[in-house]
Amino acid sequence: MEREHNLIPEDAWWKRYLYRIIYRSDTKLGKLFDIILLSLILISTAIIMMESIPRLDKRFHYTFIILEWIISIFFSAEYVSRIAVVKNKRHYIFSFFGIIDFLALVPFYLSFFFPVTKYFLIFRMLRMLRVFRVFNLMDFMNDGSVIVRALKNSSRKIYIFLLFLIIFSVIVGSLMFMVEGGRPGFETIPQSIYWAVVTVTTVGYGDVSPITPMGKFFAVILMLAGYSIIAVPTGIVTAEMRNKRQNLEKVCDRCGNEDIDDDARYCKQCGKKLA
Amino acid sequence: MEREHNLIPEDAWWKRYLYRIIYRSDTKLGKLFDIILLSLILISTAIIMMESIPRLDKRFHYTFIILEWIISIFFSAEYVSRIAVVKNKRHYIFSFFGIIDFLALVPFYLSFFFPVTKYFLIFRMLRMLRVFRVFNLMDFMNDGSVIVRALKNSSRKIYIFLLFLIIFSVIVGSLMFMVEGGRPGFETIPQSIYWAVVTVTTVGYGDVSPITPMGKFFAVILMLAGYSIIAVPTGIVTAEMRNKRQNLEKVCDRCGNEDIDDDARYCKQCGKKLA
Amino acid sequence: MEREHNLIPEDAWWKRYLYRIIYRSDTKLGKLFDIILLSLILISTAIIMMESIPRLDKRFHYTFIILEWIISIFFSAEYVSRIAVVKNKRHYIFSFFGIIDFLALVPFYLSFFFPVTKYFLIFRMLRMLRVFRVFNLMDFMNDGSVIVRALKNSSRKIYIFLLFLIIFSVIVGSLMFMVEGGRPGFETIPQSIYWAVVTVTTVGYGDVSPITPMGKFFAVILMLAGYSIIAVPTGIVTAEMRNKRQNLEKVCDRCGNEDIDDDARYCKQCGKKLA
Amino acid sequence: MEREHNLIPEDAWWKRYLYRIIYRSDTKLGKLFDIILLSLILISTAIIMMESIPRLDKRFHYTFIILEWIISIFFSAEYVSRIAVVKNKRHYIFSFFGIIDFLALVPFYLSFFFPVTKYFLIFRMLRMLRVFRVFNLMDFMNDGSVIVRALKNSSRKIYIFLLFLIIFSVIVGSLMFMVEGGRPGFETIPQSIYWAVVTVTTVGYGDVSPITPMGKFFAVILMLAGYSIIAVPTGIVTAEMRNKRQNLEKVCDRCGNEDIDDDARYCKQCGKKLA
Repeated sequence: MEREHNLIPEDAWWKRYLYRIIYRSDTKLGKLFDIILLSLILISTAIIMMESIPRLDKRFHYTFIILEWIISIFFSAEYVSRIAVVKNKRHYIFSFFGIIDFLALVPFYLSFFFPVTKYFLIFRMLRMLRVFRVFNLMDFMNDGSVIVRALKNSSRKIYIFLLFLIIFSVIVGSLMFMVEGGRPGFETIPQSIYWAVVTVTTVGYGDVSPITPMGKFFAVILMLAGYSIIAVPTGIVTAEMRNKRQNLEKVCDRCGNEDIDDDARYCKQCGKKLA
Repeated sequence: MEREHNLIPEDAWWKRYLYRIIYRSDTKLGKLFDIILLSLILISTAIIMMESIPRLDKRFHYTFIILEWIISIFFSAEYVSRIAVVKNKRHYIFSFFGIIDFLALVPFYLSFFFPVTKYFLIFRMLRMLRVFRVFNLMDFMNDGSVIVRALKNSSRKIYIFLLFLIIFSVIVGSLMFMVEGGRPGFETIPQSIYWAVVTVTTVGYGDVSPITPMGKFFAVILMLAGYSIIAVPTGIVTAEMRNKRQNLEKVCDRCGNEDIDDDARYCKQCGKKLA
Repeated sequence: MEREHNLIPEDAWWKRYLYRIIYRSDTKLGKLFDIILLSLILISTAIIMMESIPRLDKRFHYTFIILEWIISIFFSAEYVSRIAVVKNKRHYIFSFFGIIDFLALVPFYLSFFFPVTKYFLIFRMLRMLRVFRVFNLMDFMNDGSVIVRALKNSSRKIYIFLLFLIIFSVIVGSLMFMVEGGRPGFETIPQSIYWAVVTVTTVGYGDVSPITPMGKFFAVILMLAGYSIIAVPTGIVTAEMRNKRQNLEKVCDRCGNEDIDDDARYCKQCGKKLA
Repeated sequence: MEREHNLIPEDAWWKRYLYRIIYRSDTKLGKLFDIILLSLILISTAIIMMESIPRLDKRFHYTFIILEWIISIFFSAEYVSRIAVVKNKRHYIFSFFGIIDFLALVPFYLSFFFPVTKYFLIFRMLRMLRVFRVFNLMDFMNDGSVIVRALKNSSRKIYIFLLFLIIFSVIVGSLMFMVEGGRPGFETIPQSIYWAVVTVTTVGYGDVSPITPMGKFFAVILMLAGYSIIAVPTGIVTAEMRNKRQNLEKVCDRCGNEDIDDDARYCKQCGKKLA
């Protein structure tokens, strides 16, 4: 996820100290910091959710606002500290988590100048992604990165599959628009495409369903197709996941080749016997 | 599932005798005991189900109560016997099945002191898990343990996947709350998250479905995402399951072939006799 | 599917002749017979379907009855011939297809003695299974048997998975019965179990869906569980299917070992170099 | 997808020039042409969709018609050019994309002679498939062809699976017709089969759902079956996709190791330099 920015800042001692607490979790204070961060993220998310429930918002309106203030100030201080103690500030600011950290703070400060709208909350919700940052430190993401790598390596195939799925849905949706005429849920082509996607992905809300026998017949074909082609993304990811069972620790000490399978006894690039 | 507690108790002969009947199934009586146990578990479950149907409960109320008494007494006697004949009593009591056995009895005895509430029944339902204990003995669980092991080995990856799925659903739910405003089913963020989970898991009840074109557009994207990421848990478990096949310890010492079946006597690659 | 019964009957020439037409498809007449059989099966199925549509049944009632007579007489003649020309009659009669052939005829003859009821039609529908018999001959089922074998080999694991799924659904259903009280769709435990199965299998009709926030919360957990454990049967079948990629034609000519992988160069049982 | 027709036409220079622009994308003009083509396909599709929305069609009716004219003329010119510059004209005309190109133009020219009906639009929608032609050139389809090849290789198995699924649905549908009698959604056998397909593919609209306890019981069995057999197509495609990885032609001639990556220079099992 996040490449570490300047592991060892050589500036002032307090910077080094803070760096260790914030960016690492190998000290007691560092671990405490992580736990506080995780708690605040979860509390913050819970507050945003509860604010949307009128009954709760009425009763605890001011509690929520005060808590939001406290959390926002903490997150602001954290954001400033993160920039302060890191050497390559640019790198952090434009890294994935740097942007998330920033976006999560924006709505709070904007609310001083603009009336609060519900469109702010989605940015506040982005804070949840910071959960991964904490887990990242907790040595929990090794398994996660296997998933992410498998998805990344198969992303092109998945894009093509999605492209095919979209074109397929558009054509089938148009077909159903012809068949089901202007019946409820099939009034326009986009609506028919909506139905096609609901069906082919096997979600099947039932807010729109075919009415004429002809429509039902086409729906049956579409469902059988959807049921079969679900195998495609699965096959892609599974094949990719199996592929990456390399031994991540082994390196060939003659040629530096790192792409070494678990069962390899010789380097496939230079023929050196592996230890 | 259950590690056996003290295979051969050396106490009294009747303990050894009972032990063999209760904990094993290699004698005629032991098999009979298993079948009776299995039957009582199924009867007990059927009674709990039927009690919840007013029409049946009215008609057979006393039959159900009497049967429940008989079964509870049998299970109590069994529980006491299990403790009596086993050497490491502590181990049994705090084992997975020991706790299940205990919890399944609790509601019966509590009902003497407290009014019976419907909250008791879930504990009584836990009895069903004892079915696995019987199958365990029946040498039926060998295949089951392959599944369990594959799930255990990939559990960390699955947890991370679920964590990602939850965060994804929370963010998408919040987005839909913004888009679909206060329309039915999207009144609050938690409700919108409920919709997001219903959609991304392809369950699609249809009790809540998007109404605005914008909402339908986001729903389409979510469905396509859900349809694609279903591949991830599948890929994880499949990769893990495949991993547990061949004899992982055998290697051909002439050619280094590690793909050696359990029953192989010669290397299939170079013809060398295997040790 | 069907083991052939007595490939070469040595009786009368007409028996041998008929045998070749009925049981094989390597002659012109044999192929014609297959095509007629396939057509009649499909026509018969179409008639049964159309009979259930009042509008069509009214209009073509007598046409349907006459066609059914013709087809039933043909199938009867075929059944008698099959028994006549085969040597091991017992074997055929009690084989899978022998029973199907018989059951498909029973309702027709029963209808002379008993009033026709709708319960007859399911037996008539079993005729559809005979389609596989025709395909069997058409050398189309080689790929099919790979699927069947993979399913057979993993059937024990799938049974255990289903057993687990059922027990899981029963316990979750009971839990929801407690949570959702007597709300519509959750009036009794069996109904709650029905909902649990609808949810965990991601079917999600929506005829029953949780109403209380607590119920929705449990539903969300159940859906996430269902979405994840769908990976289990997939993993089982995929692992089994990959496992069976042996070369079915290779046999070791020294020791007769038939379990030879595609990539094997030496027999793994006796070490003989394979041709 | 499309085999190229006569890569180097030796005719006039303008033909060679046009050929390069239209059929290739290794020149600046060729790339521009692809981008224009892609844009026009997307615009054309968007127009067809918007025409179906009465509100938009009313307002922009003439804009849509003019744009459709422009696009149709461009596509016509392109179609004629494609035929003109290619040497093997027959090959192009009857190729997959040749037919698509033609069908997409037909409705436009037919509309001069016949009144425009909604049945035309599906042919116009086929234009979307031309998107693949553009991507084809863009060296994006390498990954796509892996998917297509895996699907093609497993197509026979998938057909048999679908055949089985259809016969299964027909029999289960008939069974439900018997059980649920003439209840809404189960009035005829075809309707019951529609329900069976909706259920077994886990789509679950909910427009039809079982009402009687008996019907719900059968539905539960069907759902569990559908949940399990979804593993079959997945297993088929995954097995096929895995099959297409390694370099299948390379073998180590010292140890016979066939598991050789595309980029390997030495055998990973015995260290032998590969030819």
